[in-house]
Amino acid sequence: MSDCDVELLPIEILASKIEKQEITASELVERMLGRIGNHDSKIEAFVRVSDTAKAAAHQADEDIRNGLYRGSLHGIPIGIKDNYLTEDMSTTAGTKVPDISFPNTDATAVHLLREAGAILIGKTNMHEFAWGNVTPPTKNPWDRNRVPGGSSGGSGAAVAASFCSAALGSDTGGSVRIPASLCGTVGLKPTYGLVSKSGIITHSWSLDHPGPLTKTVTDAALILNVLAAFDSEDPSSRKIAVPDYRRSLGQSIKDLRIGVCRNHFFGQNDSEVEAAVESAIEELTELSAGLVEFELPNLQYGLGAIFTIELASSSCYHDRSLKAGLQKGFQPDVRTLVEAGKFITATDYLKAEQFRRVLMRDLAKVFESVDVIVVPTTPITAWELDQTTVRIGDADESVLAVSWRLTYPFNLAGLPAISLPCGFDSRNLPIGMQIAGKPFAEDVILRVAHAYESRHDWHHRTPNL
Amino acid sequence: MSDCDVELLPIEILASKIEKQEITASELVERMLGRIGNHDSKIEAFVRVSDTAKAAAHQADEDIRNGLYRGSLHGIPIGIKDNYLTEDMSTTAGTKVPDISFPNTDATAVHLLREAGAILIGKTNMHEFAWGNVTPPTKNPWDRNRVPGGSSGGSGAAVAASFCSAALGSDTGGSVRIPASLCGTVGLKPTYGLVSKSGIITHSWSLDHPGPLTKTVTDAALILNVLAAFDSEDPSSRKIAVPDYRRSLGQSIKDLRIGVCRNHFFGQNDSEVEAAVESAIEELTELSAGLVEFELPNLQYGLGAIFTIELASSSCYHDRSLKAGLQKGFQPDVRTLVEAGKFITATDYLKAEQFRRVLMRDLAKVFESVDVIVVPTTPITAWELDQTTVRIGDADESVLAVSWRLTYPFNLAGLPAISLPCGFDSRNLPIGMQIAGKPFAEDVILRVAHAYESRHDWHHRTPNL
Repeated sequence: MSDCDVELLPIEILASKIEKQEITASELVERMLGRIGNHDSKIEAFVRVSDTAKAAAHQADEDIRNGLYRGSLHGIPIGIKDNYLTEDMSTTAGTKVPDISFPNTDATAVHLLREAGAILIGKTNMHEFAWGNVTPPTKNPWDRNRVPGGSSGGSGAAVAASFCSAALGSDTGGSVRIPASLCGTVGLKPTYGLVSKSGIITHSWSLDHPGPLTKTVTDAALILNVLAAFDSEDPSSRKIAVPDYRRSLGQSIKDLRIGVCRNHFFGQNDSEVEAAVESAIEELTELSAGLVEFELPNLQYGLGAIFTIELASSSCYHDRSLKAGLQKGFQPDVRTLVEAGKFITATDYLKAEQFRRVLMRDLAKVFESVDVIVVPTTPITAWELDQTTVRIGDADESVLAVSWRLTYPFNLAGLPAISLPCGFDSRNLPIGMQIAGKPFAEDVILRVAHAYESRHDWHHRTPNL
Repeated sequence: MSDCDVELLPIEILASKIEKQEITASELVERMLGRIGNHDSKIEAFVRVSDTAKAAAHQADEDIRNGLYRGSLHGIPIGIKDNYLTEDMSTTAGTKVPDISFPNTDATAVHLLREAGAILIGKTNMHEFAWGNVTPPTKNPWDRNRVPGGSSGGSGAAVAASFCSAALGSDTGGSVRIPASLCGTVGLKPTYGLVSKSGIITHSWSLDHPGPLTKTVTDAALILNVLAAFDSEDPSSRKIAVPDYRRSLGQSIKDLRIGVCRNHFFGQNDSEVEAAVESAIEELTELSAGLVEFELPNLQYGLGAIFTIELASSSCYHDRSLKAGLQKGFQPDVRTLVEAGKFITATDYLKAEQFRRVLMRDLAKVFESVDVIVVPTTPITAWELDQTTVRIGDADESVLAVSWRLTYPFNLAGLPAISLPCGFDSRNLPIGMQIAGKPFAEDVILRVAHAYESRHDWHHRTPNL
């Protein structure tokens, strides 16, 4: 890597260069903005580039010169999914409806990033109202004929393309981990209640999880260190003692039991995906206290449950828009979902919530004998822009239904889960592996993810733009 | 009080008589069964009298003779609302539908009472599936032309008539406190999650609160001492450090601020009720750190919110019965409600839950400047059996709508609230006053209630049977 590739570096390396003034935040931001200018017309990861980022970087440099170094995110360019409110950039949540507007204030997570010295470089594209896994018009930097995933597709593409060092996403059924998997980045969905949702446009409030997309596991830990904090503005925010998540990285995982759920998560995946994840599991088994294979009962009801909750919550959120007829301006796929959700009955909704409780209990039981669960993130790698079905084994399946099959259980249960690259398929498309843990055991899943990552160089690969 | 009136005594006095063997549990149970035999044909408080109570009392006496005294409830006859499962008595939850049956196991609360040595003397009548405030055919012991309230009407009537020393009830919108108020007993609805709901037939699980109806505040503390315990069988059970609730009784309330909510809870009550409660508030003000008057915003939406949640949850619970057409056998009023609940949409339900959160936040804010809230329990005293409307001021109102107006806010918010007698109206009907507190501040509301009770003899009055 030459000096002119400094923008490709992860935060864990950039941070010390900035602290030691080997590079300035201004120079880094200029380079990122240059990259965006040169290449984002092909990728369309951003919907809006900040016009205050240069001034913020200038201030960050001045602070460092004055001895005021704020920590690892100081001067680091970060992209923000366009459903986080931002004071200095308008927010659209991916919609083109002119009558729907959002306030110009900072979401709590955005505020925390600014306080930590991060430079918010722009707003990333997203599937409208976070209701989908495609994120038009964004393209996957590894193959521009393919989708970046969604709904945080702009964030995944922006990090993969090194338009920013990291980006915020939000994950209701997989919307951080799916684009992370398809774009070859790390994506972390923290435990429900660990990171404030205040100031993020609601999709389905009991399922929405804010989280970062990053180049490395360490970078995810560095961002979580800043974002994990109680917030009285978020009714679901939990008062939890937050450790320094970086501290557990690099430690042995010899004491940890690797759990693998053999039903639902395996047997219906692309064969290259499955082979890559099986190989990673073998490796983790050797590094750890061993493998525990199990089956989860009741999962056959999971998709119905999360879909019911998501449809109902989304339609409730959009109720005023529906009453004003504004859904006519939504994209057709999103309009259908938001209108359909009106017909979910309270009985349906409550049964879905009852299933959620059963799943949480089933998973709590599993976690009595395992420390983490390792499964693929997505059954397939990035699909083509116009592709609607995929052949897996003998069956043709909807790519949309397939794409969140392995991620949504951890939204229903509110458990922490991280996706990280574990290989590339024969088309040179990234393959993602998912590691889930007990409530608030982010330190454990980061430790396992880091143990795997440190033995490979998947995260050093970058797409040609 | 003569020796032959021993069954009229509260637990706080009976307990030491039993411990000292001045009276045996067998004698007490015989007297209670005699009273039930002589008088319950007029009151109809019980649906089923235990045929194992005498044997249990005999065993309780033998245990005491053998030095195994289990505490204040040892040998005390207690009535059980017919929605608590009991191993030795069938359970009907107030329904006459023959195809609906329930298992013969003990609910957690029942199990805890047995472990504490209590004698379960019978199952008390209730409004079908706890869906109403009338409890036919039970009559109010103070005036048999009047209702006992509901849905725990049998428990209220049984305690008032001294058919048992205390009884269990359950409170979804006021179903412990309303019959307590109308029958002149104490009724305690603990904080949501303090007492296990496991083994109680569900009405609306996010609103259902098990609790005791007793003759005195001390008796309520003695029963709560036994019932308050974490239970892994109830998903909403909370792990809370449980104090000895008796310890705070008799202590000064000079350090406590008495809050009175001037909107919603006053101005639309029977004038005798309002005068009695105002007088009690004056008295408490003198005993305490003083009066704080306030208004609660948003309460105008409360009835819609709780009704939506209750209808939806109840219909979800009865979904299988509805699919099998069994609701045709429900009482007409209950059938209407359970069928209507099917048409609540998930959007309606979620908006109601959002209101609940707003109310909880509003109340949490109030409790920054007050320690308890004192208001009437019911706007009116016991109404006539066939009465459907009541005139309050210039308005005719439905007695059913009126009856839970002042109790339901504390179900929605899940806060502890106790009802205790604070006078009698000119028809010699009991008037109830309600004291609510912060989550898990049962010790505080019991202390205030006891401070008031100890200055009056309302609780010594008994109805003529």
